[in-house]
Amino acid sequence: MSGQKTRQWILANPPEMDPVLSGDNATFTLETKTLSPPKPRQVLVKSLYLSNDPAQRAWIQKDQDPERLYTTPVVKGDVMRAFGVCEVVESNSDLKKGQLVVATTGWSEYEVVDAKDCRAIQPDESVGIRPTHFIGALGGPGLTAYYGLIDVVGTKAEDAVVVSGAAGATGSMVVQIAKHIVGCKKVIGIAGGTKKCKWVESLGADVCVDYKSPDFKEQLCKATEGFVEVYFDNVGGEILDLMLTRMKRYGRISACGAISNYNKIGDPVGVKNWMQIVMNRLEVKGFIVTDAVVAGKTGAMLQRMVQAIKEGKLKIGSETETVVPTKFEDIPKTWMMLFEGGNQGKLVTAIKG
Amino acid sequence: MSGQKTRQWILANPPEMDPVLSGDNATFTLETKTLSPPKPRQVLVKSLYLSNDPAQRAWIQKDQDPERLYTTPVVKGDVMRAFGVCEVVESNSDLKKGQLVVATTGWSEYEVVDAKDCRAIQPDESVGIRPTHFIGALGGPGLTAYYGLIDVVGTKAEDAVVVSGAAGATGSMVVQIAKHIVGCKKVIGIAGGTKKCKWVESLGADVCVDYKSPDFKEQLCKATEGFVEVYFDNVGGEILDLMLTRMKRYGRISACGAISNYNKIGDPVGVKNWMQIVMNRLEVKGFIVTDAVVAGKTGAMLQRMVQAIKEGKLKIGSETETVVPTKFEDIPKTWMMLFEGGNQGKLVTAIKG
Repeated sequence: MSGQKTRQWILANPPEMDPVLSGDNATFTLETKTLSPPKPRQVLVKSLYLSNDPAQRAWIQKDQDPERLYTTPVVKGDVMRAFGVCEVVESNSDLKKGQLVVATTGWSEYEVVDAKDCRAIQPDESVGIRPTHFIGALGGPGLTAYYGLIDVVGTKAEDAVVVSGAAGATGSMVVQIAKHIVGCKKVIGIAGGTKKCKWVESLGADVCVDYKSPDFKEQLCKATEGFVEVYFDNVGGEILDLMLTRMKRYGRISACGAISNYNKIGDPVGVKNWMQIVMNRLEVKGFIVTDAVVAGKTGAMLQRMVQAIKEGKLKIGSETETVVPTKFEDIPKTWMMLFEGGNQGKLVTAIKG
Repeated sequence: MSGQKTRQWILANPPEMDPVLSGDNATFTLETKTLSPPKPRQVLVKSLYLSNDPAQRAWIQKDQDPERLYTTPVVKGDVMRAFGVCEVVESNSDLKKGQLVVATTGWSEYEVVDAKDCRAIQPDESVGIRPTHFIGALGGPGLTAYYGLIDVVGTKAEDAVVVSGAAGATGSMVVQIAKHIVGCKKVIGIAGGTKKCKWVESLGADVCVDYKSPDFKEQLCKATEGFVEVYFDNVGGEILDLMLTRMKRYGRISACGAISNYNKIGDPVGVKNWMQIVMNRLEVKGFIVTDAVVAGKTGAMLQRMVQAIKEGKLKIGSETETVVPTKFEDIPKTWMMLFEGGNQGKLVTAIKG
């Protein structure tokens, strides 16, 4: 049996700052190769949907100290890593042909992977659970939201919560979990643009403040009058700095990410209001959702979220994802939308053809 | 009975950046006034020693939002606030004339204060406990060290600890408490200059790294090989930024202060390595020692420290304080030594005459 031919996007030039889409210095290059046939306990899968995650930017950063990373970096010459929803097309394992799985296929049309690294998924259209939800609301972003909000900083009903990147895959779930599962007394979103802010409010935020507005600072101060107990930070940089001045004494910050700096890793915007942490006795906790996976916590988390979906508390309708039909050669372009604020909810690449 | 005449240093121009010692824009001005005689339950005290604390710089910052401060700010026209060791010279209370007390007298030769705000102290020369220790090793700095290290981040024997400002009043106690009370597996100091570093090592640090050395970064990386569990931060700024890259996964940072930025509050050096908090799941906890006071914890803490002094575990000899005999008119000059690294251990102003 001959191997499957596939196109793959290779990391050609790990970027220092903004990724580059074309030219000699292009971050990624497209190659074609023939895969070896699956060995015992392996499967050949076809990528249907690719997950676009801000964390991918960190994986490819040039000249990183691998000791300081939470996962193996993607290095020059590697296939660009990504989670995907795939279909099993050939199986040397218990997984049946046609089964949908979530796997780390990377930006590849086809891939051969170990069956044990595939998570079989069961979409349930009757309650609105589609395949893409397993890389969104019921995948990394949803689990990140739940874990970071509830486990990491112990958010309770009596807390007022601010979440930045509130229109993103994780932020939009934080808003919903805070409001509809935890029942927080106030949920304040921060997002870019009127349209996104209205959408975040439709998800349950009491108010969503537009960081692109010229009076953003005044609006945020008004929204956080009396200060807030919890800040879920997806963006870092200047918004984080401002939020340090809006935390209540003994407030908690769940440090999830810093997308505003991901293309400036070599020279990020510094946090100037560190002394607020001291003077107001703030607690800052960084986290990575894989810790919840390793601790075996995700099963119960997913169960609670699925229950909330069934009860109509969490919205996971089509407006909670931006699914972009994309030709294979345009995968990097769709991914770059993450850093341009181009998505509402989860940004999914649907591979065309 | 007529009131006591006294000289006082008044905050004349709250500074934005470096305090100014003379000229039209001088931060402080010297004035003379006559105090009202003590009312019932008040005492007239004479200042013998003044405590010099980095936190005083924050109290006088220009244009602060009082809602974000941990204590009432000192404002234009106020006597400069300071803790002092004083002698009761006239009493309308249970406190006897001649009793030594710690009180918040400010930079004043004499002051009338409520007896309830005076802490009577009992120096014990037989075990080396002098009056100045009650504003040093057994006062704010010692309690700050104990609380920040043990209560705030739960330091245990199995932790390797780094402390910055290790030759300062608080840092030098952190080194000693970590090594001789907690028994930490490794204690690493950071201080400025060879002399201070040697002194910190004599207190019990396994090694003390000189931040003024041209190869400071390399030295610190070597000293923290394998990374560290706990960082006690007194300095903020660039050293904090570097330490964020030297923390072990799940490490804890006790955020005590940021003296490197206290004269740059209007434009502090930003923390660029925030993403280390996320990727390595660090926990950062700000604290103020007054919380330990309010919680009624300081009695037990002092007891344990006095016991350790008696057992010879903690050194509080004359080399652990820099006592500067100072004419009243030179009080601001002595205080400024704090920001110039002029002290080894606690910086105490001994008022001359």
